[in-house]
Amino acid sequence: MNILQFPVIVLNFKCYREATGRRALKLAEIAEKVSKNTGVTVIVCPQFTDLRLVAQSVEIPIFSQHIDPISPGSHTGHISAESVKDAGAIGTLLNHSERRMLLASLDEAVERAKQLNLLTLICANNERVSMLAASLNPWAVAIEPPELIGSGRAVSKVKPEIVSNTVKLIKNYKPSVKVLCGAGISSSNDVSAALKLGADGVLLASAFVKAADPEKILSDMCSAAQHYL
Amino acid sequence: MNILQFPVIVLNFKCYREATGRRALKLAEIAEKVSKNTGVTVIVCPQFTDLRLVAQSVEIPIFSQHIDPISPGSHTGHISAESVKDAGAIGTLLNHSERRMLLASLDEAVERAKQLNLLTLICANNERVSMLAASLNPWAVAIEPPELIGSGRAVSKVKPEIVSNTVKLIKNYKPSVKVLCGAGISSSNDVSAALKLGADGVLLASAFVKAADPEKILSDMCSAAQHYL
Amino acid sequence: MNILQFPVIVLNFKCYREATGRRALKLAEIAEKVSKNTGVTVIVCPQFTDLRLVAQSVEIPIFSQHIDPISPGSHTGHISAESVKDAGAIGTLLNHSERRMLLASLDEAVERAKQLNLLTLICANNERVSMLAASLNPWAVAIEPPELIGSGRAVSKVKPEIVSNTVKLIKNYKPSVKVLCGAGISSSNDVSAALKLGADGVLLASAFVKAADPEKILSDMCSAAQHYL
Amino acid sequence: MNILQFPVIVLNFKCYREATGRRALKLAEIAEKVSKNTGVTVIVCPQFTDLRLVAQSVEIPIFSQHIDPISPGSHTGHISAESVKDAGAIGTLLNHSERRMLLASLDEAVERAKQLNLLTLICANNERVSMLAASLNPWAVAIEPPELIGSGRAVSKVKPEIVSNTVKLIKNYKPSVKVLCGAGISSSNDVSAALKLGADGVLLASAFVKAADPEKILSDMCSAAQHYL
Repeated sequence: MNILQFPVIVLNFKCYREATGRRALKLAEIAEKVSKNTGVTVIVCPQFTDLRLVAQSVEIPIFSQHIDPISPGSHTGHISAESVKDAGAIGTLLNHSERRMLLASLDEAVERAKQLNLLTLICANNERVSMLAASLNPWAVAIEPPELIGSGRAVSKVKPEIVSNTVKLIKNYKPSVKVLCGAGISSSNDVSAALKLGADGVLLASAFVKAADPEKILSDMCSAAQHYL
Repeated sequence: MNILQFPVIVLNFKCYREATGRRALKLAEIAEKVSKNTGVTVIVCPQFTDLRLVAQSVEIPIFSQHIDPISPGSHTGHISAESVKDAGAIGTLLNHSERRMLLASLDEAVERAKQLNLLTLICANNERVSMLAASLNPWAVAIEPPELIGSGRAVSKVKPEIVSNTVKLIKNYKPSVKVLCGAGISSSNDVSAALKLGADGVLLASAFVKAADPEKILSDMCSAAQHYL
Repeated sequence: MNILQFPVIVLNFKCYREATGRRALKLAEIAEKVSKNTGVTVIVCPQFTDLRLVAQSVEIPIFSQHIDPISPGSHTGHISAESVKDAGAIGTLLNHSERRMLLASLDEAVERAKQLNLLTLICANNERVSMLAASLNPWAVAIEPPELIGSGRAVSKVKPEIVSNTVKLIKNYKPSVKVLCGAGISSSNDVSAALKLGADGVLLASAFVKAADPEKILSDMCSAAQHYL
Repeated sequence: MNILQFPVIVLNFKCYREATGRRALKLAEIAEKVSKNTGVTVIVCPQFTDLRLVAQSVEIPIFSQHIDPISPGSHTGHISAESVKDAGAIGTLLNHSERRMLLASLDEAVERAKQLNLLTLICANNERVSMLAASLNPWAVAIEPPELIGSGRAVSKVKPEIVSNTVKLIKNYKPSVKVLCGAGISSSNDVSAALKLGADGVLLASAFVKAADPEKILSDMCSAAQHYL
């Protein structure tokens, strides 16, 4: 399943107004352009309502922001793995700090995603939870100390030992599970720092979505990542 | 905002496999055809990922199955009112028995929907909760005793007094709020019974989505509803 | 059921360390002493684990901080109405801003409490939600704008119109439902202001529990309330 | 921390009417008597409101049914580790199938319990989740397939391979973590089967609480367990 080339840059569009509808499409097109220019894998995570629109229009990998631990059926207002796959997603975030999941539900959601060959990127708030996440054999784990999310202070700089410890622990325990680094990533320096610490990529949101010049900042980040291709 | 003609038939696609992606579109096209033929308003509620696809293709009203009580912003895996409106929905279900909401969140979600001129259809499990829902001045309240949902036994037949009481209470307290009848609606007889009891429409799911011949059953239901136009 | 004399002062012990175990008992004894001295009804709301201890030792009314919408049975880690009643509570808070409830669960919890003759005090974050709460016919509704809770700025002073509007709306709609005023109540002046606006009492927590001299502050508040006996 | 002698029999009182208040005390006294007679460790898990009552009256270990992932402070209607410890509990169940926890909350609750030297018994619904639970280094993990809870069909008999696999996996990965077996345990034969498969004890509820003769059934179970002392 690990068909994507590492390192990867994952762009979470959240529910930002700047990343809704046509603006989501515009941002995805920028991501596609920069990815093609630099050769660095860029994954975008639009809102559920925009998944199909984006997937039909760009050729970079699309992830959903969440799936519920359900089979298709009698569930109103839920997100099945089938629905996001049908809309064109090839993977999904799970357990983001803004969408924490029950332990049993996370387990079930990962299983359901695997049955559909959807990649899973589980977010974790500390080293212990990262190890728990890794034990589910997901595609990747993203370590994101909640207090740094959206702070502009990158975990790779402020708490580098969290990143390097998590990388070491997971690589030792589950060598096939990739480790991403989130929370506060806002510059190419932050990306370099993360990859230098052994991360296989980064996960960011506002620094790209809300940038005055999203193409510029993503280009810089991808340039930094090129050294680790 | 009450631009829609009553009675209405609301079709909840839930997360049914038979109502995902292109199959959602197919069902919506059937709904559009029957609605045009009979003059009865038919509203469809596809999954989030299918909202835009359906809205772009048919000219009947589209509702979302849920929205979260949030403004656009830093919310991962949530559903903003803005996102479903951007995708083409003109309204939303709220507080469905499969997606119950916190009281304070329901209040907030109704307010957010109103700011965007989205119609709100609040589901309620009994008369008391129907009155609470009505006090938020939504577009409509749907009374759905949970034990009858998906049962094939229509509330309008099995517990007609719940429907007539709720209609009476709400019409007296908030005359502008419409009252729909859900739970177990599976035939044109059930629709007739509901409208006879004073309901302004019905809400159903499996009886249409999983029907061997969805067009046939919806045509029968709309024919029954024509008498109340 | 309204056997208690108004106005009332309701003391929420929350999970404060200063109000756990023997310290909960100590605070309840202070409340009892001041209540007896002033003739003003004081209700204490200890943690679940302290309900019986407090109820066995003092003769003022005890409320639980929450109950779940369940019957006795196969529920692990939940709070049944029966369990808090058995422990000596005569009422319960519901839907506190730190323990928001699903609309349908709140309705069910109020019903279960009534079956056991437990008084219900529903917290609400704004006027609309206060009206919803009142429509369930609880013993009382407490209006508590969340942004003022624990702020030291009393709703009765900072937003007096919220209190007077809520009082007017509820007294008009459900005359038997009492209206309390919470959020930021921290002095006898705040109590006076609330009662002057028509409230039947106040709900407070930290200003009493964390006071250097809890007896002094409660005595002052009860003195202020005496004018409204 | 593992001061308790194995195997153990853990009795979950849930919210059963038959195990509330004085009836909880009565059942705990039976458990104490049988434990003393047989030398087998029996742990009881009363409701929050009964913890102190039971802890003051019997000399067997008391567990809480749940704790929330909070520090003492401004939390209404929650259960702090401090409150259950103060009431006399020496440990707590966590993540029971009727009280599932968020992954991050479970991690936090285990940490808080450890800071207070409270033993933690994490319930898990399958082998994968058992491994996740074990990675938090709790006192013990209880494997409980939800479909068998309260079924009268014991996991140790109906799905023995789940028990033996979980035992093997956890003993290999975290040798210090004990493995209990729950779900459907209703006779001494079920207990024998569980211990034979390598479990360090059993977790049960209705078979004891709702028994016509609780002392008889517990005596039989403890007799079966004596062979594994």
